[in-house]
Amino acid sequence: MRICRFNTDRVGIVEGDEVFDVSGALACLPDSRWPFPQKDIFIAELARLLPLMSELKEQATPTPIADVRLEAPVANPSKLINAPINYRAHIEETAANQEIAHGRDMTKSIWQWGLFLKANSALSGAGEPIRLRYPGRRIDHEIELAVIIGTQCHGVTRDEALKYVAGYTVGLDITIRGPELQSFRKSADSFAVLGPWMVTADEIDDPGCLGLELRVNGQIRQKANTRDLVYDVPKLIEYASSMYQLNPGDVIFTGTPEGVGPIEAGDRIEARISEIGELRVDVAPEIVALPRHDPVLEEMQCLKSA
Amino acid sequence: MRICRFNTDRVGIVEGDEVFDVSGALACLPDSRWPFPQKDIFIAELARLLPLMSELKEQATPTPIADVRLEAPVANPSKLINAPINYRAHIEETAANQEIAHGRDMTKSIWQWGLFLKANSALSGAGEPIRLRYPGRRIDHEIELAVIIGTQCHGVTRDEALKYVAGYTVGLDITIRGPELQSFRKSADSFAVLGPWMVTADEIDDPGCLGLELRVNGQIRQKANTRDLVYDVPKLIEYASSMYQLNPGDVIFTGTPEGVGPIEAGDRIEARISEIGELRVDVAPEIVALPRHDPVLEEMQCLKSA
Repeated sequence: MRICRFNTDRVGIVEGDEVFDVSGALACLPDSRWPFPQKDIFIAELARLLPLMSELKEQATPTPIADVRLEAPVANPSKLINAPINYRAHIEETAANQEIAHGRDMTKSIWQWGLFLKANSALSGAGEPIRLRYPGRRIDHEIELAVIIGTQCHGVTRDEALKYVAGYTVGLDITIRGPELQSFRKSADSFAVLGPWMVTADEIDDPGCLGLELRVNGQIRQKANTRDLVYDVPKLIEYASSMYQLNPGDVIFTGTPEGVGPIEAGDRIEARISEIGELRVDVAPEIVALPRHDPVLEEMQCLKSA
Repeated sequence: MRICRFNTDRVGIVEGDEVFDVSGALACLPDSRWPFPQKDIFIAELARLLPLMSELKEQATPTPIADVRLEAPVANPSKLINAPINYRAHIEETAANQEIAHGRDMTKSIWQWGLFLKANSALSGAGEPIRLRYPGRRIDHEIELAVIIGTQCHGVTRDEALKYVAGYTVGLDITIRGPELQSFRKSADSFAVLGPWMVTADEIDDPGCLGLELRVNGQIRQKANTRDLVYDVPKLIEYASSMYQLNPGDVIFTGTPEGVGPIEAGDRIEARISEIGELRVDVAPEIVALPRHDPVLEEMQCLKSA
């Protein structure tokens, strides 16, 4: 099933080019008071809600999906986990290009880098534009298969890992190039795009055999297949869950393949993963300006002149 | 005012060695339904709740603070932001010791490193033990002044930065040493300890002049003053808020001074910051064992034998 969040926290089932509003099912989720749980309770309860959502769909009038504003299919992750340099050809392009590598040691493997985090506050959906910042810094697109954890787990083995997956979605790991740590450069507001919807895990035969393709203004930039992942999805779940508990709604961005490149204000990004769908998102026409001055840019200028 | 969270989400005012339960004030916070906001609504509403909390305190019977289980004073941050290498003497000790540096370039400044994130799911309080993992890997204590953001902000200037602070607390940035990215090694469950309580910003004259002291089993390990921060609190807020929006309840761990060192199962940590208080936390007597095997340890062993 394809499940989307849209038009300010409504929930829909997507079929073809139409969305069926099944938000009535949300009435089954409990009210909560502060403090709120460290998980996405919709994802946590999804298996229980699916039959009701299917029933509600039968009575719903469909809306063309082009007429709704799509939001990230996960609203409340406890963390957005990210795999660095997880496709061999991307490792090679990074090692060959200091604009991407910025002095990082590209002979290190993913198990020496470990995983990194993007800020939850960077979460965004297809219906919200990507907001660039820091004029003069290169900002890149990175298409990634994104895995949505469905069940709390810890210390999962590779063999059992896929049991804990609720579904999959297309992820865009928007990235400012530069010397700073990944969890800083990749955490600006709107830099963690998920969508257009989530596809439940039962519909994906093998997350290790999905085609990825990203176009900017119609031009193909990235084209690859998840079979070339260095750490595949089960291995990433095993590795992540050995460090920390995974909670329902946690997302693993599995890493981007070769072909990363800059985006500019006003661009249109189309990011497609087979068996999931195509995430179409605009880059806002205006670059975010800070009220007075810009400490990151200033520091970079000091650095260049030093 | 000193405000604590205790005994499963009760809220108290701390005076001397006693806590006054003022949880009645929480009734003023709204119920919420999924999806929950990306902020801590108690911290967001704190200014409005304080008069009511003071009233409730007058009727409350105090409990000795030793008799309650203290929880992290922030429950729902949207992100836990961290400053790397932010005290000069700590930069020197790191550069001189490969057990800490693991090949990282210590001539880089904080504005080249940027800031990193700890997972929200690592959040823990004084009343919960720190749970070690990966026997054989060195795990260190790092005392840090932790700044709790009170008001949503973006692009804040240094001069105005302290206006956005709700309060301060003691932070322990528990750290596995190794080659991996900070946001991985520092994000295990229970590795982001905050407490014992928060002190509201009005009670701290100058966050740039606070003494820090950390003892393990009674022995002093770290002793420093926030006047030696490379990026002080206003500069950190300016820098962080230039990258992403800061939300009420977001925490900035300001970096640790010199003296970092390993902790062992069963240790007692006492971390004191002047004008705030002393966070006392135990390291659990048992090391977390994974159900079957341990991919991080295995990778490290492969690495050593390579």
